[in-house]
Amino acid sequence: MIRGVISKLGKGGVSLKNYKCFQRQSLTTEWLYPSYKQPGVSFSTSTCCGSKDLELTSVRYNVERGNYSKVTEADIAEFAKIVPNRLVTDADEIAGYNTDWLRIVKGASQVLLKPKTTKEVSAILKHCNNRHLAVVPQGGNTGLVGGSVPVFDEIIISTQLMNNIISLDDLSGTLVCQSGCVLESLDNYVSEKGFIFPLDLGAKGSCHIGGNVSTNAGGLRLLRYGSLHGSVLGVEAVLADGRVIDCLSTLRKDNTGYDMKQMFIGSEGTLGMVTAVSVLCPTRPKACNVAFLGCTNFADVLSTFKSAKGMLGEILSAFEFLDHQCIEVVEQHLDGVKSPLETDYPFYVLIETSGSNAEHDEEKLNQFLESVMSKGTVQDGTVATDMTKIKAIWGLRERIAEALLHDGYCYKYDISLPINKIYDLVEVMRNRLEKTAVRSVGYGHLGDGNLHYNTTSREFNKDLYGQIEPFIFEWTAQHKGSISAEHGMGFMKKNYMRYSKSEGAFDLMTQMKQLMDPNGILNPYKTLPKQY
Amino acid sequence: MIRGVISKLGKGGVSLKNYKCFQRQSLTTEWLYPSYKQPGVSFSTSTCCGSKDLELTSVRYNVERGNYSKVTEADIAEFAKIVPNRLVTDADEIAGYNTDWLRIVKGASQVLLKPKTTKEVSAILKHCNNRHLAVVPQGGNTGLVGGSVPVFDEIIISTQLMNNIISLDDLSGTLVCQSGCVLESLDNYVSEKGFIFPLDLGAKGSCHIGGNVSTNAGGLRLLRYGSLHGSVLGVEAVLADGRVIDCLSTLRKDNTGYDMKQMFIGSEGTLGMVTAVSVLCPTRPKACNVAFLGCTNFADVLSTFKSAKGMLGEILSAFEFLDHQCIEVVEQHLDGVKSPLETDYPFYVLIETSGSNAEHDEEKLNQFLESVMSKGTVQDGTVATDMTKIKAIWGLRERIAEALLHDGYCYKYDISLPINKIYDLVEVMRNRLEKTAVRSVGYGHLGDGNLHYNTTSREFNKDLYGQIEPFIFEWTAQHKGSISAEHGMGFMKKNYMRYSKSEGAFDLMTQMKQLMDPNGILNPYKTLPKQY
Repeated sequence: MIRGVISKLGKGGVSLKNYKCFQRQSLTTEWLYPSYKQPGVSFSTSTCCGSKDLELTSVRYNVERGNYSKVTEADIAEFAKIVPNRLVTDADEIAGYNTDWLRIVKGASQVLLKPKTTKEVSAILKHCNNRHLAVVPQGGNTGLVGGSVPVFDEIIISTQLMNNIISLDDLSGTLVCQSGCVLESLDNYVSEKGFIFPLDLGAKGSCHIGGNVSTNAGGLRLLRYGSLHGSVLGVEAVLADGRVIDCLSTLRKDNTGYDMKQMFIGSEGTLGMVTAVSVLCPTRPKACNVAFLGCTNFADVLSTFKSAKGMLGEILSAFEFLDHQCIEVVEQHLDGVKSPLETDYPFYVLIETSGSNAEHDEEKLNQFLESVMSKGTVQDGTVATDMTKIKAIWGLRERIAEALLHDGYCYKYDISLPINKIYDLVEVMRNRLEKTAVRSVGYGHLGDGNLHYNTTSREFNKDLYGQIEPFIFEWTAQHKGSISAEHGMGFMKKNYMRYSKSEGAFDLMTQMKQLMDPNGILNPYKTLPKQY
Repeated sequence: MIRGVISKLGKGGVSLKNYKCFQRQSLTTEWLYPSYKQPGVSFSTSTCCGSKDLELTSVRYNVERGNYSKVTEADIAEFAKIVPNRLVTDADEIAGYNTDWLRIVKGASQVLLKPKTTKEVSAILKHCNNRHLAVVPQGGNTGLVGGSVPVFDEIIISTQLMNNIISLDDLSGTLVCQSGCVLESLDNYVSEKGFIFPLDLGAKGSCHIGGNVSTNAGGLRLLRYGSLHGSVLGVEAVLADGRVIDCLSTLRKDNTGYDMKQMFIGSEGTLGMVTAVSVLCPTRPKACNVAFLGCTNFADVLSTFKSAKGMLGEILSAFEFLDHQCIEVVEQHLDGVKSPLETDYPFYVLIETSGSNAEHDEEKLNQFLESVMSKGTVQDGTVATDMTKIKAIWGLRERIAEALLHDGYCYKYDISLPINKIYDLVEVMRNRLEKTAVRSVGYGHLGDGNLHYNTTSREFNKDLYGQIEPFIFEWTAQHKGSISAEHGMGFMKKNYMRYSKSEGAFDLMTQMKQLMDPNGILNPYKTLPKQY
């Protein structure tokens, strides 16, 4: 018996009661996945993190400058030779490159360089290394942990003009491009040949592939296509001393020696600057469906996940969850954004399928929904019938972060945990902060074991902050989780590494940094605790 | 119009003419994938590589011993404390560990140690490093490039007794186990919980997961589940100095610092000895189909591959090809093994699908076959209807290597190339060796761009060998291929690294080895050219 089904045909979807009648969706590729700009770019500075006149990172976080040289006239003259007319020293023009979009960090760089070629990057780094000048590689500057912004006067090397697509093999789907290509442009480009870029995330309209690779970005398609450690076939990077490391293979298999490209994936530009990548792009699915479901408790969410893995199998492309507090904050702060379900539930699940045959996908989804409804693990739900509805449902999930900022100040955590422990953390934190926080919410990529835990206050509250950290990291460590699932360490989290990594692994990382960047000029104050 | 269809219902399959009538296959998990023991183990030594009394590697290949210490009585006493009753010095018992199954290499080790725990491995390596004693880690000893066998008197550290399964998360599918677990046992174990091990290869009945990870084994499921760089979530390894590097994460996402575990994947035990791994196991598909097709030329094979990617999409789990010369050698040397097609074709394609819904998979396969038959890119074919037939077809493909050995001596090459260039190499070599070789054959994992090129002579022929190498490596390098797709460098290929890797990448590897194993005690004479 299917329980708790409420018809809401007029409200942005099709009730599960009627889900059998929905129309086959054969989508054009351009609509296959939602594309959202990062929510922050449209904010006024006063609503974003509660700070209009942002303090310098070095002041706010009391950082000591490393013993690097300062840029001289002679250095500027040298840079002008390497990147003629692509050297910026105007303070106003550099301002945007000195701050992140979340406005949590602010640097004081006075030099911005815009190379076009690997050779130019090599010449810049060689000079900087010889002169002991610190640098920060910067892509789209869309990071969430302050990894791409200078802390002091590091020279900014932007990949903005390194935006050439080099090749696309239309048999294998292997794309080769420079590191400054914008993710969304790459996805559009490969879609014309019937492929899909294996990475998708909210910032796709601005982020650069070089930054994605350097931060091992996760995002919405990881459940289906795996991490960049698998789908990146090749990397070209420049070491601190200017040596070009050409591991730009386009082969799916290559077991000739150590896989050195892996060291540049996720090391946040601290071991080398990524200048080009090759990526294996899968065949683009022809069909897409999205279901939004209500559950009574978290155990039912887990059970629904298990059923989805079994019954949707190879077509399952996203399994996201959010708690009711997420819906509350979105409905409170964002005009026109509403839950597509009429009744409230403690938990919601967003499921996306994508595959090569729309009818088969629908049939699998129908069978799955019948099963979870009859078992009672899902109480109610809606299946999106067209791309407007699909986008609306994805929008609800994607705009939680934006809505939370309207509370005043938002403390953001990006945690990996064993899947069955994932919501325990939210409950523990909610109880702990009950008296001081405005609210605590939990949502994220359940299929990947990735929780986004967020709590808010009217303004930055040092006591509350002290109640959260380091407790949240300790709890995560006790439960064998990771304190950074997909955002990376950057500047903001570098000191908490030991909560997630063993001493042995940490020592090896430190040795690695020493080996590949002995002067520590590459993106200092980031990733690893103090080493400069 | 469907052309060239020949009915052969009685011959091990269903003609394409009648393929619409075949029965739905819902397979039990134990039958889902064929499991073959490595063909070599049943050979008599006289047929295998034409050598009964195998020369020592050091003699045959004129190797100079590194400046390592020799094992003393005091060392033996120390080892006896670390692994009581698991220390072997009996020459007969060690003999099998001193030779590979292909019988291409032979070492002269006099000490074999069988630790059970990571702590014991750590104590062994610490002692060896202090004493400057060389070691070779050994798993199932099923490698094809002499990577797991000593060259001189290296101490063999076997993972044979490190065969405990530590945990399986039945929600996420994450398996954690010691490095000595046999691949097939792991696959059987996870299948009971509805998962599939993401790696499968001919030697699955003997090879150890530690060896698979250390060699970045590719195999039959790579097309579907990707490489071990993506599916291995964690590695525990012991460095040369005995330090235990615990990167045994069970999390799908963990961006806290450099992904050091990647350095142990594919480095053939030269950077550390893998003691435990955690692997993400996907949901086991419920249905499996195999089609064997005949094509007139290689362009049609490529076109068929493109169609398969588009039409079979997410259920395509293998796309293998073989040329007619492969069928010839199999039919000539192996009793009862025959092509399932009545007519000969220059090329054959083996396609496997696996998915969560048998009816949907059949429908997709039927639509695909209709399409390629009507386009004329496929001339004829058979679709296997039950597991006996599926195993027979896979057996034909898998036993080519065995059949070739019956010619006398086989020169084996494992090459990656851009897919559209893959067969050019076979044609170039066949013309080049026309007068001296018995035959040249080409087969392999087309979907991964991986060619197995093999040529044979009655006995080892130095002139022929000189006509093959280094020409084959030069040709591969010119066409941007890799001289080792999945077999690794081991002892046999280490000197050819530069054909596939840039100077910069090679230098970095050398630095890496120096950093992680400064005394060079770990698996010397392997992977990198002389560094001891």
